[in-house]
Amino acid sequence: MNTENEKNKDWRGKLHEIIYEANTFAGKAFDVGLLIAIFASILVVMLDSIDSYHQKYGTLFSVIEWTFTGLFTVEYILRLVVIKHPLNYVKSPLGIVDLLALIPSYLSIVFIGSQSLLALRALRLMRIFRIFKLGRFLSEMKFLTVAISGSLRKISIFMLTVLTLVVILGSVMYLVENKENGFSSIPESIYWAIVTITTVGYGDISPVTPMGKFVASFMMLIGYAIIAVPTGIITTEMAAAARNKGFHHQVCPGCGREGHDQDAKFCKYCATKL
Amino acid sequence: MNTENEKNKDWRGKLHEIIYEANTFAGKAFDVGLLIAIFASILVVMLDSIDSYHQKYGTLFSVIEWTFTGLFTVEYILRLVVIKHPLNYVKSPLGIVDLLALIPSYLSIVFIGSQSLLALRALRLMRIFRIFKLGRFLSEMKFLTVAISGSLRKISIFMLTVLTLVVILGSVMYLVENKENGFSSIPESIYWAIVTITTVGYGDISPVTPMGKFVASFMMLIGYAIIAVPTGIITTEMAAAARNKGFHHQVCPGCGREGHDQDAKFCKYCATKL
Amino acid sequence: MNTENEKNKDWRGKLHEIIYEANTFAGKAFDVGLLIAIFASILVVMLDSIDSYHQKYGTLFSVIEWTFTGLFTVEYILRLVVIKHPLNYVKSPLGIVDLLALIPSYLSIVFIGSQSLLALRALRLMRIFRIFKLGRFLSEMKFLTVAISGSLRKISIFMLTVLTLVVILGSVMYLVENKENGFSSIPESIYWAIVTITTVGYGDISPVTPMGKFVASFMMLIGYAIIAVPTGIITTEMAAAARNKGFHHQVCPGCGREGHDQDAKFCKYCATKL
Amino acid sequence: MNTENEKNKDWRGKLHEIIYEANTFAGKAFDVGLLIAIFASILVVMLDSIDSYHQKYGTLFSVIEWTFTGLFTVEYILRLVVIKHPLNYVKSPLGIVDLLALIPSYLSIVFIGSQSLLALRALRLMRIFRIFKLGRFLSEMKFLTVAISGSLRKISIFMLTVLTLVVILGSVMYLVENKENGFSSIPESIYWAIVTITTVGYGDISPVTPMGKFVASFMMLIGYAIIAVPTGIITTEMAAAARNKGFHHQVCPGCGREGHDQDAKFCKYCATKL
Repeated sequence: MNTENEKNKDWRGKLHEIIYEANTFAGKAFDVGLLIAIFASILVVMLDSIDSYHQKYGTLFSVIEWTFTGLFTVEYILRLVVIKHPLNYVKSPLGIVDLLALIPSYLSIVFIGSQSLLALRALRLMRIFRIFKLGRFLSEMKFLTVAISGSLRKISIFMLTVLTLVVILGSVMYLVENKENGFSSIPESIYWAIVTITTVGYGDISPVTPMGKFVASFMMLIGYAIIAVPTGIITTEMAAAARNKGFHHQVCPGCGREGHDQDAKFCKYCATKL
Repeated sequence: MNTENEKNKDWRGKLHEIIYEANTFAGKAFDVGLLIAIFASILVVMLDSIDSYHQKYGTLFSVIEWTFTGLFTVEYILRLVVIKHPLNYVKSPLGIVDLLALIPSYLSIVFIGSQSLLALRALRLMRIFRIFKLGRFLSEMKFLTVAISGSLRKISIFMLTVLTLVVILGSVMYLVENKENGFSSIPESIYWAIVTITTVGYGDISPVTPMGKFVASFMMLIGYAIIAVPTGIITTEMAAAARNKGFHHQVCPGCGREGHDQDAKFCKYCATKL
Repeated sequence: MNTENEKNKDWRGKLHEIIYEANTFAGKAFDVGLLIAIFASILVVMLDSIDSYHQKYGTLFSVIEWTFTGLFTVEYILRLVVIKHPLNYVKSPLGIVDLLALIPSYLSIVFIGSQSLLALRALRLMRIFRIFKLGRFLSEMKFLTVAISGSLRKISIFMLTVLTLVVILGSVMYLVENKENGFSSIPESIYWAIVTITTVGYGDISPVTPMGKFVASFMMLIGYAIIAVPTGIITTEMAAAARNKGFHHQVCPGCGREGHDQDAKFCKYCATKL
Repeated sequence: MNTENEKNKDWRGKLHEIIYEANTFAGKAFDVGLLIAIFASILVVMLDSIDSYHQKYGTLFSVIEWTFTGLFTVEYILRLVVIKHPLNYVKSPLGIVDLLALIPSYLSIVFIGSQSLLALRALRLMRIFRIFKLGRFLSEMKFLTVAISGSLRKISIFMLTVLTLVVILGSVMYLVENKENGFSSIPESIYWAIVTITTVGYGDISPVTPMGKFVASFMMLIGYAIIAVPTGIITTEMAAAARNKGFHHQVCPGCGREGHDQDAKFCKYCATKL
């Protein structure tokens, strides 16, 4: 019984390595295979959403979708089985996404029309970032993550400023422009302010009165200037990350000074061997 | 009477601490509570501006608005009472905003329609930046303020250049394009030039003649290049601010001044060994 | 006669100082006065270009315009008289602009309709940059000029790349999209490509066929990425300009090392008095 | 026969120098002449694509186009003849482009309508970058190439993130918005998501329902923030390239290697005093 238990463990351990890790060849193959399946399933959902294709190949798409749903269900169950604490996986972001990608298919049996929720399967594309955990992209990925997470607090202050700004400017525009010109309510005007300040500019709503155009011009110039702020934040953070990457580990044993390049063999200040 | 005066002082002092400061628990609670009230009141004004909601819940919204107006009036009076120099508060930007947020409600009794000015209450959202004065956002907020205020003069030169450019290019476009294509006057053409150079591009006015399209293409490429300037300005300033931030821990033991480089061995002001 | 000549010189010299220089009070006053006159004349031209105003106040505007034309003519003649080499002024950019601002008024006597060329008077706004030559903006102005002129060659390579790109992508789009959807000729398609790659996006021409939308999506993502290039160029150049500004003049007389802050009194490496 | 062979070699060698190199006067002249011919041929194709010109000057354009096709055919054959390994040229990017520019003319004899493929001749504009290989632009060109190729891996991670994002957000929008409002299929919604997140914003498709506008606002603000990422990447890389550029004059007298910091006293590779 002990050996059987061990065998069992071994069997689960191997599967765990294949499904959750990416160090072994089987693990990599599983990850790549999964990604291809995700891509294919999303492609089918995409094509099925086009009316003309749906009418021609609707049944075929339906069969393929159910096949993928079956595969992904098996994968989900395997993930639950081979992990020690299944609840941790279920509650993790990727676990929630994996479940979200399965539910719509089963829901569509009961509720007709909920099949369109299959579009949520696109969320599984987030697994693509697992590829970057392999090989040469690792350090670049880490660099970007460090730089962006380091600037998150500043970016959130910026975003809150922009949000306050669009609420105020949207309200002002609601007062200035006529209701007939698309600025029919404050939320609508705020939507317009966001479209304007981010320089998207659909043109579905645009100022018509001279006063409205004047206020809008003012807003655009503000938007033009403040777009520089997030760029400045991230660039500064990246420069800091790049500097740290190159330097901070090497301290000269002779004079104790830092700042040596990564390929330096001797201290540039006192010529001690590093 | 002396004790009563002291008590009175004490009572006013405590209220001052609650309303104007944010160091104590009561002060923080007041600030957060006020922000929630501001958010709620703005939400009501927003919803009330949507026609269908206004027709259904107009009376309810009216009651809530008057309740908030009452609360904010009490808050405004308290702010006047507990401060030593009430006029300083009245003349301060936040004081003006607080008053602007109150007036429309009272005006609406006399002038029907002025209620839409309630949208100005959105200006009170500026109080949100008081939150950042608390805790961990303080240094980030300070960093952004230093970098932006440090680049204000350069940004204003840039803005003046852009304004000159849009006046010139708008005038040229007025000459080049037909009046029927939306370029009906020079101010209108300048509005178009701003929409174009800031890359917003509503499309409400767009060049129609080949010559107009050629000039517009030229303008767009210019706009594409010069958007780099404010970004460059702010990034450089932020990099400088980030560098300074790195310095500020070193205090000279001789003269007590800060701001030394990280590789400095002697104080640059008094030559004391660091 | 000698003294008269001297007087004459003196008289011309003084006027030269007032008109061309900005060091004396009179010189500054002349510059500011001239700018106000330019602003006012442009404002009149602007208002006159609005049909409803033109019909009401057309005659008044005409009188004001002729007054300004008279003033500017006197100014132009004075500039010719008080300068040693009048041809140099006539051939200088500002001289050409000053003349261009005068011609339309006189032309309008002969050719009816050429009055709209008055819009060219906006070019005279370029004189506004003379203000920055005064006082505190001088160093900021110089900083921006150095950084931008230093990056001109790189920016021009970038612009040529963008131009090549829009010609190629415009041609591809002309092949891909139907002529009925606005892509009626290659120049038209190139115009669309510029509108797209600069993220202006009027929407006067937009892809309709699936293939066209695919190619356009590709172009937009390219445009999204390459907008980073001019920003990078100018930021790097500005950082270099900022670094040079702070440092490069001070060399320690004791140890010969550079890199001292501008407010440093002692060398940070060897404590020698700077 | 030996001398004839040598003569032959010499003749081919000289032509090779003229056609492929740009060091001699003849080589430069050939490059410039070729560029002018390319420009002229593209201009003719452009003008021919405009209907009104085509009807008037169609025959003339046809003659000029065939002349250029003849010239470029001769050039292509010469390039094949004078090079040692013709296949290498045929398979090189420029070789493929050169062939692509020739085929449409000859195809148009057999298939009517394929003449519009002549637009592909615009691809030959890529030869313009050969100019930068001459003279003063060389180092700037190298600088930009180093910086951009150094950031390619990071940019590709960013692009993949953006692509994942637009697929997810496009799918969400397909669920949220009505099919009648332009979000008729998932690919269509993804196209809209790209138009929005790159801030192009044609307005051919724009959200109509309140929920759709809310989701779109969210997307625009995301797009506003993440545009900072490629800029940050390229700026950091350029700053690094600029720093390296500053180093390259210091060559170690001991080992002859470059790349030392400006404050280095000893070679970091062999500890020789600099």
